[in-house]
Order: sequence, then C-alpha cells, then structure tokens
Amino acid sequence: MKKLSRRSFLASTSLATAAVAMPIPVDLEKGKKSIFIHHVYFWLKNPKSEADLAKLMEGLEALSAVPTIKICHIGTPAETNRGVIDRSYAISWLCFFKNKEEEEIYQTHPIHLKFVADYAYLWDKVIVYDSEGPKR
Amino acid sequence: MKKLSRRSFLASTSLATAAVAMPIPVDLEKGKKSIFIHHVYFWLKNPKSEADLAKLMEGLEALSAVPTIKICHIGTPAETNRGVIDRSYAISWLCFFKNKEEEEIYQTHPIHLKFVADYAYLWDKVIVYDSEGPKR
Repeated sequence: MKKLSRRSFLASTSLATAAVAMPIPVDLEKGKKSIFIHHVYFWLKNPKSEADLAKLMEGLEALSAVPTIKICHIGTPAETNRGVIDRSYAISWLCFFKNKEEEEIYQTHPIHLKFVADYAYLWDKVIVYDSEGPKR
Repeated sequence: MKKLSRRSFLASTSLATAAVAMPIPVDLEKGKKSIFIHHVYFWLKNPKSEADLAKLMEGLEALSAVPTIKICHIGTPAETNRGVIDRSYAISWLCFFKNKEEEEIYQTHPIHLKFVADYAYLWDKVIVYDSEGPKR
C-alpha cells in the first residue's frame, strides 16, 4: 500500500474529488483558530436490537442536516479490541464545528430538538466529549 | 452569523484554501467506503501540571507525523459542561484513517512506538474509542 505523506496527499487532491469526500472547514486556518469537536457515544436500551440501532442511525442521518456541522460521521465499534478500547457503546456520533458558538446553535437548533424528542427513548446512556484546539 | 448549507459551503471552497485547513481523505467516496476513527482520551498522572500537559502535547505533535493519519486533532476539554459531558480528561487525540489496515500500520509504526516509550509515563488512564462507518 502506497503511503502518502500529508503534503503529497494534499497535492494529489482536486476540488472535484474533495466534493464527494468530505466538507472542508475552509475558515479554520492552520494554527490560527480553534476547531470544536463534539463526540457522542450512545448505549442502547436494547443493545441487541438491530431495529433500534437502525432507528437511531436514521435519526442521526436527519440530525446531520444541522447547517453549522462542518463534518460529521456515524460509526459503530471497530473490530479492534485491546484492553484500553471501550467498544461497549452502540453508535459513535462525531461532529466538527467551527467554534463553540456554532456548536451552541446546533444544540438548540429545531432539528436537534426534534432528534432528542423523537429518538431519546432508544438510548440508555450517552457520554459526550467536547474538545477544542487549534488545527495543526 | 451566516449559516451555510454543506452544499454551499463546499461550493465556496477553493483548493488553495483547503490546503491550509485540513487534509482531505480523497479516496473515501461518499457512502462507498468506510472511515476508521480512532479517538483517544488521556488522563494525566499529574492533572494539575501544565508542564506535563505541554509535554504530552509535544509528543502528540510528533506522533501526528505517522503517514497513514489522514486527519488528526489535539484538543483539550471545551467549556461546555452539561451532565452528559465528561470533561475530566486532559487531552483528546483524534485521528481519521482510511481503514483499519492503515490504523494497524499506525499502531506498530516506529513513530508510534517511540511516542509510547517516551511519553507513557505521563498518563494515568487512557480510553480509546475506535469506530467505523461509511462516509455520509
């Protein structure tokens, strides 16, 4: 497998390809501004229910329409299984925001409020890690 | 504050601006392939030591040179403080990989092994969440 340095990786990028891959936080200049990362892990009330898992994913798909989200990703536990890895959760929901103000807009956005109202019955526990730091 | 849809956000992007913002996983076509997200939270042995915090950040800066990392971010707990938020950790280390094979290369890469050898004395606890899922 060819290993690309990040410089050559960028050099090989075209905007046309970028558009199908991932939105780019263009206004986060390297080292100058912070990125706000909101990472939520959900544990289901019925952890063995494929239907409940699919339902919550459906809700998160709808939630991804909140316009202040720059990048988002819905994931499930990977196969990796070392001692330090917590893979007991059902779904990972990761969002990048420009800053905390835009994350606050997300928290109170009607789409987010509807998500909580419609889907909160599915989860037993949620852990949220919010972090900030300059882009490197 | 102007709210951009993700479509218009992309439309306003130029490659020149993208280059200073964030590497783009160009080979992760929407809905077609998975992204591997590796998120590590570190708790320090001396949580009040600014010097230890800076030291670990220095180590993570060096770690970010592992070539299979597509995007990485070093963060500290944001100011948000609701009941579901865990802000007891010292540093968040988030990496995007193309797939689990590239994350495995990272795990055994000499830069990663040196990071663990040189900096593990600083942390008391680590929690890792690895997740996978198609780009949306």
